[in-house]
Amino acid sequence: MTTNVRSYAAHSPTSPLGLFRFDRRSPRDNDVVIEVLYCGVCHSDVHNVRNDWGNANYPMVPGHEIIGRVVDVGAQVTRFKAGDRVGVGCMVDSCRHCAACGKGWEQYCESGATYTYNGEDRIDGTRTQGGYSETIVVTQDFVLKVPDGLDLAGAAPLLCAGITTYSPLRHWKVGAGSKVAVVGLGGLGHMGLKLAKAMGAEVTLFTRSPGKEADARRLGADQVVLSTDEAQMAEVAGRFDLIIDTVPYVHDVNPYMPTLAIGGTLVLVGYLGPLDPMLNSAPLVMNRKAVAGSLIGGIAETQEMLDFCGQHGITSDIEVINIQDINEAYERLLKSDVKYRFVIDMASLKDAA
Amino acid sequence: MTTNVRSYAAHSPTSPLGLFRFDRRSPRDNDVVIEVLYCGVCHSDVHNVRNDWGNANYPMVPGHEIIGRVVDVGAQVTRFKAGDRVGVGCMVDSCRHCAACGKGWEQYCESGATYTYNGEDRIDGTRTQGGYSETIVVTQDFVLKVPDGLDLAGAAPLLCAGITTYSPLRHWKVGAGSKVAVVGLGGLGHMGLKLAKAMGAEVTLFTRSPGKEADARRLGADQVVLSTDEAQMAEVAGRFDLIIDTVPYVHDVNPYMPTLAIGGTLVLVGYLGPLDPMLNSAPLVMNRKAVAGSLIGGIAETQEMLDFCGQHGITSDIEVINIQDINEAYERLLKSDVKYRFVIDMASLKDAA
Ligand SMILES: [Zn+2]
Ligand SMILES: [Zn+2]
Ligand SMILES: [Zn+2]
Ligand SMILES: [Zn+2]
Repeated sequence: MTTNVRSYAAHSPTSPLGLFRFDRRSPRDNDVVIEVLYCGVCHSDVHNVRNDWGNANYPMVPGHEIIGRVVDVGAQVTRFKAGDRVGVGCMVDSCRHCAACGKGWEQYCESGATYTYNGEDRIDGTRTQGGYSETIVVTQDFVLKVPDGLDLAGAAPLLCAGITTYSPLRHWKVGAGSKVAVVGLGGLGHMGLKLAKAMGAEVTLFTRSPGKEADARRLGADQVVLSTDEAQMAEVAGRFDLIIDTVPYVHDVNPYMPTLAIGGTLVLVGYLGPLDPMLNSAPLVMNRKAVAGSLIGGIAETQEMLDFCGQHGITSDIEVINIQDINEAYERLLKSDVKYRFVIDMASLKDAA
Repeated sequence: MTTNVRSYAAHSPTSPLGLFRFDRRSPRDNDVVIEVLYCGVCHSDVHNVRNDWGNANYPMVPGHEIIGRVVDVGAQVTRFKAGDRVGVGCMVDSCRHCAACGKGWEQYCESGATYTYNGEDRIDGTRTQGGYSETIVVTQDFVLKVPDGLDLAGAAPLLCAGITTYSPLRHWKVGAGSKVAVVGLGGLGHMGLKLAKAMGAEVTLFTRSPGKEADARRLGADQVVLSTDEAQMAEVAGRFDLIIDTVPYVHDVNPYMPTLAIGGTLVLVGYLGPLDPMLNSAPLVMNRKAVAGSLIGGIAETQEMLDFCGQHGITSDIEVINIQDINEAYERLLKSDVKYRFVIDMASLKDAA
């Protein structure tokens, strides 16, 4: 038994996304059937659709910043009932028995987490399809509760951009008195500012765009440093316990190293690839600094992040679009022409021809 | 008032070290006057003498792995008396009031620690001269106590090679159950094996030389992995919590990254410079791994290390030489032709013509 649903899908790396019908499975005993209300548009949606990582399968229905309402549950589902406000992020399953899964680090599952789209279901081997669709069916262990009071559209980007910045802030123990910097003011960066500020840190934005200061301060930055200005960079020498580098393309991380405090860490969350120009080890050795990386966050940690956002009234700054505008949104996203995340109002899918 | 002492010094980057007389200061109120009994030969002695780091001052008396006996103390010295067995490492002073000094991280002093040689005394501005000399005069706060029972010659390399590997082992909380790997079996590497083993870790040596297995096991390695053998490297995928990379020249760190466990750190202690070939950030992001660095250790930590070595009967494996053999020793050191550290018996200086 399956249910035929409407969605937007890509059929090749170069064709625009368009209406696509496919079958969602009927709920298994542990499944939650979710009507998708909002879906955020993540930079990785564009990478996946265009096969930038070389592992694309088509047709592909993107979307892993999913907010919806429970419409049905399997026989053994205890944690959710019809009507609940729920979220689904980048993962819909993992092996559940490796050391990483045991620690709640499903994102680092040793046999690979099951991604929400362009992944393979662990039970029946079918391709997973994401949130640009009427419904999604997910095992209850990978469904998140959305706290009351959070705006549903603004909450969607928390499921990827939110947890991607929350997890390193928590892992590197940011709190009151911490000095945190965020490199880049986009979907990830603006969440990093809000979350670090809410955790009590002193927050700085590194940007190459002088025009971003007012917005950065509104979002939580105590200070904005123009990374192209050597004098400004010198002023923050030795300052930061943690730098969250959200830049999604290759860039020089060396200029940020002197701004770390002794023992500080620069954590990459946006860029996968060779560090070009070459990372110099001298600042690492001379001041016990580190360059690290971090990937989204675990399921329990994602729930913790949502609850934290509920307590602090944190959502993403978004521009709501109709699904019919998705191809234009991708073009604008590539030009960073959005403040700061596109979110699709999935009601528009009902009108899609 | 000064005391004229004999030493071995370099007078230029290219001339051999030879006998040199210079004046040691009379003890200030907080100074300890130490008769140097043994002095280890560190890789950085060669770098400094040959001006590889571009900051050499001549004449230069190298040596920062110093073991000696107290022969005189200043009026306010309370912690030492004539006859005490003492050590001096890479530093003889620091600012003592910055945040780093406050945390006991004198090696990361914000205004720069005063190095034992080729440094500048903070009080009178004279050049510091190291341990290849009859005596050295050091403020008591930078003098270490050598535990009873430790062989004095074998203890000398603890002051640099020992603390350089001990500090990251402690900082990254190595203990029973930890899985630690050491890259390279030289002066630093052999201390890393001994110390990690004594801390209760499961210890692995990465080496490019098949002939080092027996020695590595004797020094504490539970396992030896030939880093040039892809099958052996694949077998230890995801294994190590901490890798201490002691290689003192540019090398590819990327092959070691897959052998780190999730959240693991590769810490560079031997190489300062660009990471060539380029470090790939993908393993960092995909498994929250880090590349870090570490520099010697603080004074209190160095004392802790010496006490730890005293409890566990750990000294360096050494080849004792006369000061007259120092130039040949440098050549052999550059060819890694020593197991595993040269230590100068400073009694030989009495015979130096
Ligand atoms: Zn995403
Ligand atoms: Zn797993
Ligand atoms: Zn040394
Ligand atoms: Zn200091």
